[in-house]
Parts: sequence; C-alpha cells; structure tokens
Amino acid sequence: MALTVVGSVAFDSIATPYGKRERVLGGAAVHFSLAASFFTQVRLVGVVGGDFGAAERAVLETRDIDIRDLEVVPDGETFFWRGQYEFDLNSAKTLETKLNVFAGFDPKLSEVSRSSEALFLANIQPQLQRRVREQCAEASFAALDSMNYWIEKERDSLVEAIKLVDAILLNDAEVRQLTGEPNLIRASRRIREWGPSLVVVKQGEYGASLFSEDGFFSLPAYPLEDVFDPTGAGDTFAGGFVGFLAAHAAGELSEELLRAALVYGSTLASFNVEEFGTERVARLTFPEIEQRFAAFQRMTQFEHVDMPPLAG
Amino acid sequence: MALTVVGSVAFDSIATPYGKRERVLGGAAVHFSLAASFFTQVRLVGVVGGDFGAAERAVLETRDIDIRDLEVVPDGETFFWRGQYEFDLNSAKTLETKLNVFAGFDPKLSEVSRSSEALFLANIQPQLQRRVREQCAEASFAALDSMNYWIEKERDSLVEAIKLVDAILLNDAEVRQLTGEPNLIRASRRIREWGPSLVVVKQGEYGASLFSEDGFFSLPAYPLEDVFDPTGAGDTFAGGFVGFLAAHAAGELSEELLRAALVYGSTLASFNVEEFGTERVARLTFPEIEQRFAAFQRMTQFEHVDMPPLAG
Repeated sequence: MALTVVGSVAFDSIATPYGKRERVLGGAAVHFSLAASFFTQVRLVGVVGGDFGAAERAVLETRDIDIRDLEVVPDGETFFWRGQYEFDLNSAKTLETKLNVFAGFDPKLSEVSRSSEALFLANIQPQLQRRVREQCAEASFAALDSMNYWIEKERDSLVEAIKLVDAILLNDAEVRQLTGEPNLIRASRRIREWGPSLVVVKQGEYGASLFSEDGFFSLPAYPLEDVFDPTGAGDTFAGGFVGFLAAHAAGELSEELLRAALVYGSTLASFNVEEFGTERVARLTFPEIEQRFAAFQRMTQFEHVDMPPLAG
Repeated sequence: MALTVVGSVAFDSIATPYGKRERVLGGAAVHFSLAASFFTQVRLVGVVGGDFGAAERAVLETRDIDIRDLEVVPDGETFFWRGQYEFDLNSAKTLETKLNVFAGFDPKLSEVSRSSEALFLANIQPQLQRRVREQCAEASFAALDSMNYWIEKERDSLVEAIKLVDAILLNDAEVRQLTGEPNLIRASRRIREWGPSLVVVKQGEYGASLFSEDGFFSLPAYPLEDVFDPTGAGDTFAGGFVGFLAAHAAGELSEELLRAALVYGSTLASFNVEEFGTERVARLTFPEIEQRFAAFQRMTQFEHVDMPPLAG
C-alpha cells in the first residue's frame, strides 16, 4: 500500500556534544519518509522555499520518495530550526525558529497522494491534520503525531483530529499532558475511547510501548554508546512503524504485525541518531535493518527456568 | 544455596495519593528477604529495638526467614522513616528519619550466616559492606546495592566494596553519578572493569537492564494501573534477582539464568508496589509469581515478519 505523509520539510542547524552541522536537511516529513521508504511507496506533501536545492531533492529521490506534492515557493525560504543538545541528549534547546514558507502551509494533495491507502499526519496544526484526513478518504489506515504546543493551544481541535485516525504516536509526557492522567495504561485507554485503536508511546532512551485492543507490548531502546544527534528520531521511528504496517496492511493489523512494526520503528530510530540529520538513514540498507531487528530479538529474549528441587 | 542479607530493618510511615500507613514493617533487608524467600533459604542480619514486636517477627518467620542474627537492643528503638510520594510516585520525599539503633549498626554474623554461599549487601555504609564481605569468605556470589548518599560522601570506600562483589544493583542515576559517565553502556563497562561481572540498572517505571560479559538484556516494568506504594520496590527487585540466582548457582551463571533472574526480580517488585509496605509480598504465592513471569513473556515477545513481495 502507498503511504502519504504530510508535514514539515526543514533546514536544521544542530549542535550536540559530538559536533555541529549547519543547515542540514531535516523536518518531520523528511525523516518519516526516509524511514518509511524501506517498506513501501511514500508520497511526501510539504512546502519548501527557493533555497531547497538539488542536493536535498536527491536525498529524497534516491529513496524513491514521490515529491510531486512538495510545493516550492520560489521567492520564499524553507522552514529553519536551530537547536542545541546538552550532555544528556534528552532534550533539545531551541535557539532559533524561522517558519518561513511553512507559516502559511496549506497542504495541496494531488489525486495520487489522496489515493494512498495509508496516511501519516506529522506534527502540524490539528485543523490541517483534519482537513488532510478528510481529503484522503480512501486511506484505510491513518496515524498522527503532535506535540505539547498543540496540546496546550488547540487541545479540542487536536482531540477532533485524533478521533479521525487509527493510531497516534506521542511521547510519554505528551500522553500524560493530553489526557491529564499520569498512569499510561489509563491515559492510553482514554485516548482509545476517542477512536484510535492504537496508542504508541515513545519513551526516548527507554524505548517505546504499544497499547492496543489485545494488550500491551513494550520494547527497550537499542543501546548505543554514542548518540550523535537525536533530531528526527521520533519521526524516523514513526516512519518505520507506519511504513512497515502500510506494506502489510492488505491483511488485518494483527498483534504480531503491530509488534514487528514497533521493532522496525525502533530499529530505524536507532540508526537515525548515530549520525547527524539524515546522514545515516539516507545510506542505510535493508540488510542492516534486518541485522538490527535480530539484535533487538537477542537483547529482549528470555526463557523460563524451572526451580531446582526443594525450592519454591 | 543459602543467602545471607545484611541491611536495614525499619518501621515506615508512608503517605501516597492512594492512602497512608503508620509504622508498617519495612527496611531494605526486610523487603529483600521476603522476595528472596520464594527461591532459597534466607538469613537476615540486622538490628532492631525493643519496639520490634511479635507481629513483625511473624511476617518474617512465616516466610521461613532465619532471623537468628537479627540483633535486638531492648532499650533502643527501631530505625524509623517517614516519607511521602506525590502524584507521579517516582520519587519519595523524606519527611523524617530516625536512625535509632541502626546508627550504631555493627553486623554480627553467626557461623551459620557466614557460611552462606550467596550474600547480599543492602544499602549500608560501604565500610560495613566490605567487612561483611570479608567475613563471608565462602560466598561464591555476592551482590551489593548503594545510594547517592554514599556515592557523594564515601565514593572511594564504595568503589573498594564494589571490587569485592560479583554484581551491583543501582538505579540509572546512581550509575551515572558513580562513574561520571552519562552513557549507561560505558558506565557499566567501567564498573565491570573494577571487578563485578554484572551490573544491573534499575530504571523504575521503565524497567531494568542487565550488563554482563555476554552483552545486554533489558526488560520493561510490568504495567500497573495503580502503584499504591513504591517503598521497597528496589530491594524487592534485588531479592527476586539474587534469590533466584542463589537457588541455581550450583551451576554456572549462564546468560539464560541471569535473564530469568532479572524477570523474577521485576516480577517481585511489581507485586510489592500493588499495596503498602510488605502487605502484598507477605501473602504472595509461588503460582502468582509464575503467572506474572508468563505475563512478562507475553508482553515482550515478538517475531520477525517477512516483507511482502516487491517491498524492501
């Protein structure tokens, strides 16, 4: 199944304890698309300025991402973000944000993008997420991401958007903030009562959890000695998760498929943070992904061991 | 194999959003012993005052815990702690601490306690941990716990104690503080260079990880809708982990055994927090433990799913 993603395309200037990069390709829709492209045909809907060049375009086209709906505003500038990570790499400090052409983003979907069977609404204004969801009436699977800003400013509109999708992907703080419920089991149940059958909770260095009709699945993050740049990890995770499901969703979304999707999401995210921006995922190969999937299996497997006689 | 534990025995007054209890049985050695008693013979070394009564003693004796080395100071009072947990239950606020007879704790081990093949040094002064370790020369497996206080005040002495044990169990913040290394892989490697072959990192609501010679294992925490009282969760975890290993350690500590031990530790800890103090673990049964072990398997298992044709 083809997969349409709507969201930001950006230039990021990033400083971490491991180094810095100026104006590298970024944005939620870019990180998502690159990750999802390993599993299915991806169609990217976004907007860029005249400063978005052939090099950036080539990164997307090399992964066969359909960018016919990447709108260009020739006399505008692409969304720009400058951020810095401290020693623990857990949270970014935003130093500069220039929305530029993204400020007036009005997603325009071609017939092709509207016809995708799967849809991902990256973190944008909830009202835009709803409008796009309604345009993609044929999508049998839709997921969305959001952030604390929209939870604070436009919670009602966000809840309406959530009602229209099958899955939401948020970090644990956002899930608690959205529901006002500190316990993640209860918080996820409340969100599932609004409509989505799946709630995916991203927990950064601790991994990710899946709350679904059939229960609960949790996976630790892949252990890395060096996290060079966490920018885009959440979107890359979403790309692996939704991309894998889109590739399989001709059948039903079984618990087995959902769990494998979460592992692929975590796998892609673990590669993303190994280098700056899109560097690592842009040259990733499918065999590398499969090797890391197997590594996830090795580090989470355990067996029951019977007690010796006389114990118990 | 028999298991000796040295540590605090206390009365705790606890307030959480779910209620409060006055002067309930607590202390690291108590929580540890109750958990470990499901797997092996436990010998508790500690000190109490004249206020430690038949009811408290009965809780330990019902689980066949050997308390011959539980010293009684008839005209003294037992260690007392009063704490409060806020809404998120992640950290306790200490309102009152009276060390009482624990201030002068000088562990006195009988020949029987010295002869145990396994030893757990709960969180006490590192110098005492070292002295006890040396007294239990026959113990083929020794583990220790500590806390931020000793890392700050007596780091050198603590490192010397760590050199004498096979395993340490700390939470992630303590591991980072002890080593000055924010990355847990590097931090654990440094600790393992000091001597212990095993580093167990407790991550509270996120679960626990094991760093050993053969690699890395991680397990999420059991998802609970209601955590009534986290007091003693870490010690209960340690009791399940070390108790299970002690029951099996006639053979070698294989990676398979270590992983199962971590799951049993997490299992016991998950029961401990369901009620106040020792209430839940004191009336726990082995079949309940086995059921939850199986639940951990269900919530962490996943399979590889092949990609459909044309993908990749």
